[in-house]
Amino acid sequence: MKIQSPPGMRDFYPQDMRVQNWLFDAWRRTSLAFGFSEYEGPIFEYLDLYTLKSGEGIVSELFNFKDRGERHFAIRPEMTPTLARMVAARANALPRPIKWFSIPRMCRAEKPQRGRLREFYQWNIDVLGAEDPLADAEVIAAAVAFFQQVGLAAEDVVVHLSSRPVVAATLAGLGIPPDDNDRAFQLIDRQDRLQPDEFATLWNKAYGQQVPADRLLSLLAEASMSDCLDAAESTSPGAADAVHEFRTLWDLLDTFGVRDFCEFDLRTVRGLAYYTGAVFEFHARAGGLRALAGGGRYDDLTGLLDGPRVPGVGFGMGDAPVLGLLKDLGKLPSLHDTLDVYLIDADRTLLPAILRLAATLRQHRLAVDFSYKRAAVGKQFKHAAARGARYAIVVGSEYTDGAQLTVKNLATGHQELVSAEGLLDDPQTVLAAV
Amino acid sequence: MKIQSPPGMRDFYPQDMRVQNWLFDAWRRTSLAFGFSEYEGPIFEYLDLYTLKSGEGIVSELFNFKDRGERHFAIRPEMTPTLARMVAARANALPRPIKWFSIPRMCRAEKPQRGRLREFYQWNIDVLGAEDPLADAEVIAAAVAFFQQVGLAAEDVVVHLSSRPVVAATLAGLGIPPDDNDRAFQLIDRQDRLQPDEFATLWNKAYGQQVPADRLLSLLAEASMSDCLDAAESTSPGAADAVHEFRTLWDLLDTFGVRDFCEFDLRTVRGLAYYTGAVFEFHARAGGLRALAGGGRYDDLTGLLDGPRVPGVGFGMGDAPVLGLLKDLGKLPSLHDTLDVYLIDADRTLLPAILRLAATLRQHRLAVDFSYKRAAVGKQFKHAAARGARYAIVVGSEYTDGAQLTVKNLATGHQELVSAEGLLDDPQTVLAAV
Repeated sequence: MKIQSPPGMRDFYPQDMRVQNWLFDAWRRTSLAFGFSEYEGPIFEYLDLYTLKSGEGIVSELFNFKDRGERHFAIRPEMTPTLARMVAARANALPRPIKWFSIPRMCRAEKPQRGRLREFYQWNIDVLGAEDPLADAEVIAAAVAFFQQVGLAAEDVVVHLSSRPVVAATLAGLGIPPDDNDRAFQLIDRQDRLQPDEFATLWNKAYGQQVPADRLLSLLAEASMSDCLDAAESTSPGAADAVHEFRTLWDLLDTFGVRDFCEFDLRTVRGLAYYTGAVFEFHARAGGLRALAGGGRYDDLTGLLDGPRVPGVGFGMGDAPVLGLLKDLGKLPSLHDTLDVYLIDADRTLLPAILRLAATLRQHRLAVDFSYKRAAVGKQFKHAAARGARYAIVVGSEYTDGAQLTVKNLATGHQELVSAEGLLDDPQTVLAAV
Repeated sequence: MKIQSPPGMRDFYPQDMRVQNWLFDAWRRTSLAFGFSEYEGPIFEYLDLYTLKSGEGIVSELFNFKDRGERHFAIRPEMTPTLARMVAARANALPRPIKWFSIPRMCRAEKPQRGRLREFYQWNIDVLGAEDPLADAEVIAAAVAFFQQVGLAAEDVVVHLSSRPVVAATLAGLGIPPDDNDRAFQLIDRQDRLQPDEFATLWNKAYGQQVPADRLLSLLAEASMSDCLDAAESTSPGAADAVHEFRTLWDLLDTFGVRDFCEFDLRTVRGLAYYTGAVFEFHARAGGLRALAGGGRYDDLTGLLDGPRVPGVGFGMGDAPVLGLLKDLGKLPSLHDTLDVYLIDADRTLLPAILRLAATLRQHRLAVDFSYKRAAVGKQFKHAAARGARYAIVVGSEYTDGAQLTVKNLATGHQELVSAEGLLDDPQTVLAAV
């Protein structure tokens, strides 16, 4: 019986896994450089954790199931609810600010179709317990630092920034009442994923009386930052703090040295209801502005879970869009199988010597391999090259007669006879000299 | 509404995650040293992949669910079926031997109770496409190398080894027909998890006529390796190859330098039906022989999936028993939050300088943090110590006046005034000199 891989799920063969690990390492290294600590949670949670925030409508988008005790669970579709649960459970014990990151795998019950993944990894980074725009600037700077580390510059990636209260004030100026914001935000958020006429139909049905879709879109697209902030400040007293915070954030992004990546864009509002301040999305500049990451400031993530109020800011970045962009731009590194040493025997009776040498070199943390099948020396050299070995070490009569080994640097072709004792004593140094 | 963590699932707060990452790094480093390449698969598979091998009885032990397309899936309870599927799909393209490892998370629908996990990580390491006992010896040596790397010696951990065909020959000698082996193997495998009278009842009901439970157990426990191998060789012609392979394996374990960890034990048979040769289990010597890892040789993993015959050998090692043992023995390292540099401002107007210094030092891959809230210098030094920083760098009037910074080594207490330019140019070297 032939059984396929489940639709929308990926198998990571070693050559794929090298790419994943390269990406995860870059995410992890950036997070640690910025002073964030790693956390993880369970692969599934009580279903309630997701319906609580998003309503029953979300259930069909989740892989959900009951156990024999009739507990209802769902595989996590995002990390933020888990983060909120974990922080709420220890809110009083955790020193502030809470700077955490994670690289969770997660699933969404998408309809299987080409290019639509049901399982993916996401870099999540959050600062909790800090209201200062410094935190907003720092998570954005961390994302930019990651992009720079993998070779992407401001001509490749753009951060579109806005502020929920500023957009709300702008919409209020157009006659859309603040208590109807969530629906308007969701429509604006979906706008670039909808056909233009689809968006127009949906928008005009809801808000056409206040402002027609085409005028809304040109207003949002053309609004200058200073005009928007000034207008929001003067027309909406409640937005004054948000305007001040956004101006501070904008200045801090300059101080952090990342403002050449940033553009003010009123169309960036984010779909999730919990954002309350600055919101931002990372897009690839080429090819239809592929979305790479999104996040923003939330004022009370844990309150829903009966925890104390914990404000914060964070984002999620998916593995697939980032790897896709790097591939399109030819910036994915070519990562090959590598070994430090491939051991070669000149004579099949020398296998025990090979095994003992392998054991010692491996204890020195070198990656070492050899052939299970006894083969001609030339064939073993081919195996060594195929495995990407840096050095081949030949065990032959010099070893049995005089405890010496031939070390060949496979990059330069240079080879030397070295003492086995010296090599096993400090292999890194001896190899580096060949 | 308060929502708990799902029963039997773990939250990994940063201090827990440091331990997990330390373990994963040790597993990964050992695997790479032994020339294995990492792979991964989907978190859930078609349910058929598990029932195919284990029958419908396994369904209640799995978290399983249907999607909207009525496809039936299960969260993976082990990695071997995924490995078999992935290898079968590319069996002809993959160069042999296939030396792969993975550190998958997986779930089993255990009844929630203290100490019984529903989700765990497992180190899986397999050599496929090689029948040579060298492969068996190498995976066992890899497990031993891992244990040694984390500070466990032969007085802490034992590998119990046996051979399925040898046990089968021994059972045949007691009158238990070879075609009834699987059930006998499963009972013997469960023996150390059953109460003695429970085992006796089950065994005697099935095989009491051939050999009573107490005699079987004393026979299995007391059997010497040479007697068993000799008897199997002489009484069962089919076992002769297996006996030869086992003797070779036993010699190779000596050559690899790991035989002081090894004990022949006929009671080690493993419960899974697919094992066909050598089988082995790692146990902690102290405290009731806690099971740490188990594996063995299988002759045809992918045949069930319509793939070509691919023999192999491998094992799985759980994270929880290993971490539990290390904790009991006081050998878990204490892993603290660490930073390379904590930046301190002597004056709140110097924050922009702090941010620029942080950005540059982070580009040099140093882990750098600072306080969001402006605070007295003494308080900032306390923050630095609490975060485990190796160095504090104070930005004060020497910086604004003469572009100099005070670097303090927090381990030694030594401090020096250094040039900002030099520090930013090569921070690793400048810091190492303080």
